[in-house]
Amino acid sequence: MTKQDQIATTEHRIVGTRPVRPDGADKVTGKAVYGADFYLPGMLRGAILRSPHAHARIVSIDTRKAEALAGVKAVATNADFPRVEMDEIDAGEAGINVDRAAQMCLARDKVFYEGQPVVAVAATSPEIATAALDLIEVRYEVLPHVIEIADAMRSDAPVLHDDLDAKGPSNIAARLDSSTGDAEAALATADVVATGRYTTQAVHQGYIEPQACVASVSGDGQAQLWCSSQGAFMVRSVVAAITGMNLADLRVTPLEIGGGFGGKTTVYLEPVATILSKKSGRPVKMVLSRDEVFRSTGPGPGAEIDIRLGATKDGILTAAIVDMRYQVGAFPGAGAGAGVMHALGGYRIEHKRVTGCDVVSNMPSTHAYRAPSAPQAEFAVECAIDDIARQLGMDPIALREKNAVRAGDTSFSGTPHGQIAFMETLAAAKGHDHYSAPLGPNQGRGIAAGWWVNHGGESTAMISIAEDGTAVVATGNPDIGGSRASMAMMAAEVLQIPMVKVRPIVADTASIGFSMLTGGSRTTFATGKAVSEAAAEVVEILKARAAMIWGVDASRVEWRDGEAHCLADGRDEAPLGIKEIASKASKTGGPISVEKSVYPHDAMPTYAVHICDVELDPETGHVGVTRYTAIQDVGRAVHPSYVEGQAQGGAVQGIGWALNEAYTFNKEGRVDNAGFLDYRMPVASDLPMIDTLLVEIPHPTHPFGVKGVGEVPIVPPLAAVANAVSAAAGMRMFDLPMTPARIHAALNAAG
Amino acid sequence: MTKQDQIATTEHRIVGTRPVRPDGADKVTGKAVYGADFYLPGMLRGAILRSPHAHARIVSIDTRKAEALAGVKAVATNADFPRVEMDEIDAGEAGINVDRAAQMCLARDKVFYEGQPVVAVAATSPEIATAALDLIEVRYEVLPHVIEIADAMRSDAPVLHDDLDAKGPSNIAARLDSSTGDAEAALATADVVATGRYTTQAVHQGYIEPQACVASVSGDGQAQLWCSSQGAFMVRSVVAAITGMNLADLRVTPLEIGGGFGGKTTVYLEPVATILSKKSGRPVKMVLSRDEVFRSTGPGPGAEIDIRLGATKDGILTAAIVDMRYQVGAFPGAGAGAGVMHALGGYRIEHKRVTGCDVVSNMPSTHAYRAPSAPQAEFAVECAIDDIARQLGMDPIALREKNAVRAGDTSFSGTPHGQIAFMETLAAAKGHDHYSAPLGPNQGRGIAAGWWVNHGGESTAMISIAEDGTAVVATGNPDIGGSRASMAMMAAEVLQIPMVKVRPIVADTASIGFSMLTGGSRTTFATGKAVSEAAAEVVEILKARAAMIWGVDASRVEWRDGEAHCLADGRDEAPLGIKEIASKASKTGGPISVEKSVYPHDAMPTYAVHICDVELDPETGHVGVTRYTAIQDVGRAVHPSYVEGQAQGGAVQGIGWALNEAYTFNKEGRVDNAGFLDYRMPVASDLPMIDTLLVEIPHPTHPFGVKGVGEVPIVPPLAAVANAVSAAAGMRMFDLPMTPARIHAALNAAG
Repeated sequence: MTKQDQIATTEHRIVGTRPVRPDGADKVTGKAVYGADFYLPGMLRGAILRSPHAHARIVSIDTRKAEALAGVKAVATNADFPRVEMDEIDAGEAGINVDRAAQMCLARDKVFYEGQPVVAVAATSPEIATAALDLIEVRYEVLPHVIEIADAMRSDAPVLHDDLDAKGPSNIAARLDSSTGDAEAALATADVVATGRYTTQAVHQGYIEPQACVASVSGDGQAQLWCSSQGAFMVRSVVAAITGMNLADLRVTPLEIGGGFGGKTTVYLEPVATILSKKSGRPVKMVLSRDEVFRSTGPGPGAEIDIRLGATKDGILTAAIVDMRYQVGAFPGAGAGAGVMHALGGYRIEHKRVTGCDVVSNMPSTHAYRAPSAPQAEFAVECAIDDIARQLGMDPIALREKNAVRAGDTSFSGTPHGQIAFMETLAAAKGHDHYSAPLGPNQGRGIAAGWWVNHGGESTAMISIAEDGTAVVATGNPDIGGSRASMAMMAAEVLQIPMVKVRPIVADTASIGFSMLTGGSRTTFATGKAVSEAAAEVVEILKARAAMIWGVDASRVEWRDGEAHCLADGRDEAPLGIKEIASKASKTGGPISVEKSVYPHDAMPTYAVHICDVELDPETGHVGVTRYTAIQDVGRAVHPSYVEGQAQGGAVQGIGWALNEAYTFNKEGRVDNAGFLDYRMPVASDLPMIDTLLVEIPHPTHPFGVKGVGEVPIVPPLAAVANAVSAAAGMRMFDLPMTPARIHAALNAAG
Repeated sequence: MTKQDQIATTEHRIVGTRPVRPDGADKVTGKAVYGADFYLPGMLRGAILRSPHAHARIVSIDTRKAEALAGVKAVATNADFPRVEMDEIDAGEAGINVDRAAQMCLARDKVFYEGQPVVAVAATSPEIATAALDLIEVRYEVLPHVIEIADAMRSDAPVLHDDLDAKGPSNIAARLDSSTGDAEAALATADVVATGRYTTQAVHQGYIEPQACVASVSGDGQAQLWCSSQGAFMVRSVVAAITGMNLADLRVTPLEIGGGFGGKTTVYLEPVATILSKKSGRPVKMVLSRDEVFRSTGPGPGAEIDIRLGATKDGILTAAIVDMRYQVGAFPGAGAGAGVMHALGGYRIEHKRVTGCDVVSNMPSTHAYRAPSAPQAEFAVECAIDDIARQLGMDPIALREKNAVRAGDTSFSGTPHGQIAFMETLAAAKGHDHYSAPLGPNQGRGIAAGWWVNHGGESTAMISIAEDGTAVVATGNPDIGGSRASMAMMAAEVLQIPMVKVRPIVADTASIGFSMLTGGSRTTFATGKAVSEAAAEVVEILKARAAMIWGVDASRVEWRDGEAHCLADGRDEAPLGIKEIASKASKTGGPISVEKSVYPHDAMPTYAVHICDVELDPETGHVGVTRYTAIQDVGRAVHPSYVEGQAQGGAVQGIGWALNEAYTFNKEGRVDNAGFLDYRMPVASDLPMIDTLLVEIPHPTHPFGVKGVGEVPIVPPLAAVANAVSAAAGMRMFDLPMTPARIHAALNAAG
């Protein structure tokens, strides 16, 4: 292992340490139950017939032969969903359009991408279910299709939906425009201007676990779902809306999740399994294959971004014009919105204009992917800043320090920033030994910064003290990135008891109050706040119970070292530990249990600066990353190993985005590389150890100073790698992924 | 169906009605998951080698051959439990002695009854596990055994335990003595005295579902249990104590329960499955057979009771002396304690003495059985009162009315009774047409009263309002007698929304605050109080949220018809329903979720009067019950069908106790009738429809007037049937069960 540093240490006993994770033993021994592991006696297996066409009208569906096959217990199409209104429901970070979500589960009149589900079957075995698919006859009227952004925006492009664009039928789903000052005029007077059209490709989150669920609907319409997702309440909300149920009639139990990265903030299988279970009267299990994941779940969108960035000769950024087109796939999805917000949000620029639009085309509808839409936008901006630095001969970090937003600057939302830590993060990067290390031949170094807004959102936590003084901490968020550990640590810290006396669990939707899905880097922050507040309330109860036992006023009790101390005059009482107080709970008022819901609105943005060294093989165009350091503003790292892991994971995903990853479509609009062999994500042997440096500037109004850390690390790598490759190649690389073929071609073209 | 009456109707909209049960569909379609239904992939099956001897010392255990059998993954004996202290833990209605509970799971040095577990095996199939049992060699030193109370009390009896009796080694485990006035002197001056030695046999609860569980222990010692019990927190507490775990490390998920009646207020399998899972690293399922249930789980104790009851010629009871010996089985269990409390507690008697003791012997250790120990004691008293009535020529109900306890009388606990309803129940019985209906030849009518103290205890409930305004109600008590329905009804009543908008669930031990087990007829009362209070708090929150939406003070909002109404001057706002308020929760402060723990101490005793008609066949001694009416003080019947069901079920169990049920032991002390064919419980064809009359005198301090209703109906039947048979036979029957052989012999002896 290489060094993993931390700036600032902590005054806490448990927060900031690296205990064994509470879910570790189960996960390394294979005992943990992921979506595909869940089993119910008598359950059926579901399978889905998918569109072979990128764009087609469904003329007819004949399922009679499939229904007649022995072992087939139910067949479902979109017609089995109660026809829903086009309601947006607020089930997480972004609203989910119920009607469109339903069509991504089972197509209605048209198919909009190859792999879109059309008919689902439940049978007594996976083999029978698959065999039944072959017996279904779907007649299609094949329509012309379009994939690329530019093609989809042409006036003669095949139009996917008639009703997206207020200006008349087109593939443009949203137009956004955000403007301050007079950017054109300011650009005209700038000393230096960097210009470019940057492109990125749609990339898949690549979560290791494909979607999987088991649904079980009772004869009276009550239902249960067990599934892997980023939010059981989100699943409850979307499935209930699509299938027309009361929310309280649907109990969703979260199973372990093998990665989500934003891709599991919606559902694809659950409504289908629910309808199949309802029709068959039996539990139904459905599991996607990797091929299905690639063809039918939402990747992050590709983008085409034009930027013009102007600066004075002193390195003051004065003007920027950014125009972005996001390739959102078949239905409007994760698009330009966050891109417009994030593109220039890291810098003070007086005159600026950011425009963006979402462009639909015949590929899977995109969805959130870690800091959704920010990496694309900031990629263009961070490359342009690098170009400015090169033009001015300035140090690229120094240039960023001149222009970085800081406390008191107006944020995108219009309110002034609090004590944000971009400056400290830049300073930490500048001081890191990586930044001044020598480079070898054919090597280049790039740096890039990035920021992410971070979310708060609704969270509920429950802490109950068992009769022996051990504590259960229940929350409503799945443990994606270590929340069991961080929740237990925060509770243990407040209660002042050892971490092993606190057991964290992930509760189902019927066992805890509403909790927004895990997304927006909000869980350690907001759910942690709920846990901390619940624990603080437990401490107050423990003090009151001790006071009752002693017969003193509760104000005369202090909680210290996990024990109640009696401060009442003239009383010399031995301290009472949590175990002693808990064992007497039935005599002092009953169970000690606190449920706390919070909805904090004070989440703070976080910042990251990545330093990337690459070595370029001029013969082949191959790029190897030789050293990589992720410096990140993390507020307070509750469990630093997890935070470092977030920084490392985000960096690796960003490197894949920069160098390797892209969908390839054949001329029929079918995905040609729907598998990990052909869709090339970085693996351990491709990369050096990713070094991290955690910059701890605590969030001033969070009990433990926590800021969201999970998303910002995917923002800088696209530009950090591109800047490094551009430095090594001696020329600006505008297009991702920077494959050997593309680099080779660029080097050849440049001679 | 015959008529099911109710006295008093209710002013409520939902409480007092008979909606479809929320758990109904699953239970009638076989979808509900009981203990034996639960399945985990890779789970092993456990089996238990049991003692063939009624009393023996274990000389050696050799498990090597069993361990060597292919497919055997773990073998466990008592030595695998960490040696526990003789701690009583407070895990429910009665403390459970951990050391003894452990020996009932796996014997230590001695076996005390045939069927006591000695060695447990976990293997990949039930067949292999059973085969492995045959390979285990246990050497015993067989000891003399004793079964019957009188035999066990002899000075030369084999003594089971050296340490039970403070007076020196004996089989007497507890001696109780409760005395008021001078009973001997008062008896000497009584106008009439009824005398008798009454005997009852140990009887099994006969729950339809044998004990079953699945345990799964992780590599780091955290564990989960899924099982059928009367209290998941009780299971957690006992299993953690026996196996030496932190409570928070053990998560117990309650499955459906197919009857308990007190018998499932302890554990037999769970600690064994837990240890086997720990040793094997795999989940372990264990299920008892009916044979094992009879041989190794605790029935209710038999008893031998001497009574002398004196009265004036006007029918005033003046003196009573009752001496009771309870046959508690191998270890001290459910014994004389509640018998001493209940025997005379229904009547005003100035001079009284009640003594009792628990006698151990070589049969399964007894456990709670519905109103534990009260039916035996009150059987003797209610028969004696009947004899007094006959001697005085008084109406037996009128005699009871003269002496019944009423409000203000001192209760057994020393505090005055509140507004108890014994008098009203007696009056309702006297007025019932059954009481004056004519009898045919060879028929006899008996009546008897009974009372049960009822418990309060700790309960937690959580209500969370989903975004669509539907409500989930979670509680920590298993649904044994309809608690899902009654909890949902009380919540719906308070929230003023339809019952179908409220979904009740039974939460696991990690998802809700501590809840004492379901026993002592406490759940509808205490957990219902927690639900009612939580719902009332939800209403306050809903009002506050509506006030926030309107921008008025919360005091100017009224909750009526499930809607918030604005009372603020000059404001003409349309009412806001729960759905509208819930959909805006994220904008008005976050999730609406309330957890409430209560520990009420104001549970009230309830009373029952049963009228029984029998027809006796003088040729065979066979007794047929021809008509039976259970009149019961119920406080307020939340869901009257369930309450009637309780009255009917208790009556039927009591009839079985009176007429049919008893263990038979062979001369080696082995149970000869360990199955439902030979241990004869009444079935539907044995009985008439049991009529019920619910007397509703609401509990004055419970939100819905609820009193415990589940246990008192088993108290009167023993005496009601005995009084009827005695009337038909023209002679007092003292001994239960009144089998045809016994009645025939008695009739013959009397000529």
